[in-house]
Amino acid sequence: MACSVREIADWVGARLVGDGSVELRGISSIAQASPGDLVFVEDERHLQSAFLSRASAVIAGEFFRAENSKPVLVCAEPRLAFARAAERLRTKRERKAAIHPSASVDPSAECGAGVSIEERVVIGEGVKIGARTWIGAGSVIGAHAALGEDCELYPQVTVYPGVRLGNRVIAHAGVVLGSDGFGYVRDRTSGRQEKFPQIGRLEIGDDVEIGANSTVDRGALEVTRIGRGTKIDNLVHVGHNVQIGEDVVIAAQTGVSGSVVIDDDVVIGGQVGIGDHVRIEAGAILGSQSGILPKKVVRGPGVVFWGTPARPLREYLRELAVLARMAKRR
Amino acid sequence: MACSVREIADWVGARLVGDGSVELRGISSIAQASPGDLVFVEDERHLQSAFLSRASAVIAGEFFRAENSKPVLVCAEPRLAFARAAERLRTKRERKAAIHPSASVDPSAECGAGVSIEERVVIGEGVKIGARTWIGAGSVIGAHAALGEDCELYPQVTVYPGVRLGNRVIAHAGVVLGSDGFGYVRDRTSGRQEKFPQIGRLEIGDDVEIGANSTVDRGALEVTRIGRGTKIDNLVHVGHNVQIGEDVVIAAQTGVSGSVVIDDDVVIGGQVGIGDHVRIEAGAILGSQSGILPKKVVRGPGVVFWGTPARPLREYLRELAVLARMAKRR
Amino acid sequence: MACSVREIADWVGARLVGDGSVELRGISSIAQASPGDLVFVEDERHLQSAFLSRASAVIAGEFFRAENSKPVLVCAEPRLAFARAAERLRTKRERKAAIHPSASVDPSAECGAGVSIEERVVIGEGVKIGARTWIGAGSVIGAHAALGEDCELYPQVTVYPGVRLGNRVIAHAGVVLGSDGFGYVRDRTSGRQEKFPQIGRLEIGDDVEIGANSTVDRGALEVTRIGRGTKIDNLVHVGHNVQIGEDVVIAAQTGVSGSVVIDDDVVIGGQVGIGDHVRIEAGAILGSQSGILPKKVVRGPGVVFWGTPARPLREYLRELAVLARMAKRR
Repeated sequence: MACSVREIADWVGARLVGDGSVELRGISSIAQASPGDLVFVEDERHLQSAFLSRASAVIAGEFFRAENSKPVLVCAEPRLAFARAAERLRTKRERKAAIHPSASVDPSAECGAGVSIEERVVIGEGVKIGARTWIGAGSVIGAHAALGEDCELYPQVTVYPGVRLGNRVIAHAGVVLGSDGFGYVRDRTSGRQEKFPQIGRLEIGDDVEIGANSTVDRGALEVTRIGRGTKIDNLVHVGHNVQIGEDVVIAAQTGVSGSVVIDDDVVIGGQVGIGDHVRIEAGAILGSQSGILPKKVVRGPGVVFWGTPARPLREYLRELAVLARMAKRR
Repeated sequence: MACSVREIADWVGARLVGDGSVELRGISSIAQASPGDLVFVEDERHLQSAFLSRASAVIAGEFFRAENSKPVLVCAEPRLAFARAAERLRTKRERKAAIHPSASVDPSAECGAGVSIEERVVIGEGVKIGARTWIGAGSVIGAHAALGEDCELYPQVTVYPGVRLGNRVIAHAGVVLGSDGFGYVRDRTSGRQEKFPQIGRLEIGDDVEIGANSTVDRGALEVTRIGRGTKIDNLVHVGHNVQIGEDVVIAAQTGVSGSVVIDDDVVIGGQVGIGDHVRIEAGAILGSQSGILPKKVVRGPGVVFWGTPARPLREYLRELAVLARMAKRR
Repeated sequence: MACSVREIADWVGARLVGDGSVELRGISSIAQASPGDLVFVEDERHLQSAFLSRASAVIAGEFFRAENSKPVLVCAEPRLAFARAAERLRTKRERKAAIHPSASVDPSAECGAGVSIEERVVIGEGVKIGARTWIGAGSVIGAHAALGEDCELYPQVTVYPGVRLGNRVIAHAGVVLGSDGFGYVRDRTSGRQEKFPQIGRLEIGDDVEIGANSTVDRGALEVTRIGRGTKIDNLVHVGHNVQIGEDVVIAAQTGVSGSVVIDDDVVIGGQVGIGDHVRIEAGAILGSQSGILPKKVVRGPGVVFWGTPARPLREYLRELAVLARMAKRR
């Protein structure tokens, strides 16, 4: 939605320098900017290229001094301001508030106002879908699942029966929510693995985003939970009974084993492996590819952990340096 | 299905202490138990909380002594007994023995008695489906594939043409069975990769379970095989020509390269990487995130391997300890 | 398609020894060969078993000397010749040049001649599909995406809006192309993660193949690009803004973080983790499970890198040896 530079400056709380009446229609990188675009600069060195670009306005940090022919929105956090401006200027994808005739919706399902259900979606018995939620083509929502308002489920998502999503949850294509956990009991006589019941639930809080083809298991007997605002990248695995707090960030291909507890504000790199029954305290940071042994407690905040088994980064780097030196000596 | 405590005691082979006529209707964790629920205790310390819970009966280990107002089922393996009782008490999901009208089933396909085919499933030419097998919404079964009896394919599973599944195979949502292996030949003149034929088969034995979004490739010219009773977690990759034995357990996100042989009863942690042409002997255990170099033979049983390249756990731990000590000394 | 040994010899540029009129109908491994099959031998030791097999003809290396009753096609690169012969002899899967009535194709979509669209496919507004491209059952092609000629999309692929594929691109089942990248900005006041815009594009070159359930994100503001001839295995993650060159090979479960640049002819093993803004120079080789720290430049060609953080293989092996020796000494 087009609006003036002044409106955007007010919206993001920036100080406006220059002509506030210029109309903005979108956002862009500096390299690809066209007239009508807003761009942003986090580093003074890139300011000049922003001014030389075809963009109509620039968000810049407090380092901005000399006036320019383009209007400038000055603020402490240019990247954050840009993200918010983008949200404001975003052309909302046209999603018809309608149920496509090729969708198969159980008559007992309840759909809120403005719900958009695309081609070939399957909605099971007793499902509840909050207002304005969008379900992309081919997704399957199991019986008695409950989705909040303003959720976005991309194509081919599978929601197992009984799973509960909060509001504004985003699940990218191919995500699986509520699959059986990996639990077996070995019969020592026969040597065979027998399935332990996986009948628990999965609850996902507001504003959670889950990347393409990630999988989240339901609880075995209890509940798997993902807290408000947590962001999960592509191809991540979350096992049964896991408890993830709020505003946690988990990068691609990380695996979280059963019964792990991750407190608020934890940041986890890509391809990290977390053993079962681990606890990761609030604010901890785990470097990519690190591995946490089962039942460990990882202290937070402030210390970065790395390696397998994970240890404080500084310690790990010292070990690497010692080893490299010794190997060279020979 | 509801039944009496006595029936369950007989079913799981437990010694009954107390009133056998109490009716059970389900299973639960101790924390969430309601009247009618059966719970289990593996550790004497938790016995008291089981008795204080709202559960109607308790499975306990041989440590059980003092009688209680609740009936107790005493046995050597409480967890196994609980899993079996759960199976007995399980409310079978109501799956109509029917083919949903929105499914697309080739007229040449053969479906056994009691088969349940959900919305939008696509069944190709010449497919055979055993009695009572359930195929979840949106799954696609390629031409001439053969599924055994009592299989459960969750939504959005893809079975490539010609793949064969045994009986009671479970494939969770998004599983891909029989995709092309990763095989190319580099033309040294042009530098281009040309596709090596991937025309082999995939055969999966009885009682195999495969977790959400895992992928199993067909053989290149030969057969990829997964043996009876093997359990595979989410997001696991199994390459072409791999031979996996019986009762093998593979945790999430592990990758098995082409032509690997894994013997019976092997246990593999999460995020393990196994190079091509590796052989893992029966009963071997690979710790999470370990890596096996191509063509290696991993000896089993009894030794746990860890690290990359994987070595006996004890050796690896000693190395870690030595390194930590040296790094501290500086 | 059946043809004579002589035709195949000409096709692959091999020297024919023996009866060129023998008819070939397919390819096989030596162990499984039937009359009419062509097999290949890369190593002189296996020549005898090829001759003893039921195959009708043998491709062999220049080591071939003694004549045999079977016709032999002698060439420098038997494996490459076999792959090309396989392509020639391949029974093309019968894919009807038709749009299945259960598919949902937007009237504004443009389909080239001979396009094959299977059951339940969804094609959005303004999509362009090149001649002879095949789209497997259940795939979803977002608005304004453009697919080249002779592409093969297996079942359940999701192509996000606006994604562009070249000619002869193969995407296996469950692949997700063009999903949102993983980009957030933390509001320091609230501690919440806010979504950074992910509105860029994804462009995939000719002859790219992508394995089952792999995911490739669109650019944030710019373009994610995968160059001609690059081959990607199963469950691989490619982040936003990544630039991958031509003829690159990436094995299963590798993760490529945002803004990474991978030059031509790079070979990357399985489960490798590549941090953001890394550059990998042409011809570099990364061993399986290695990890590249953010912003590093990996030199190529000719040096193999291994370990986390990745270092030249020789260096890493020396470190492992030193460590093992020290651990034994105690």
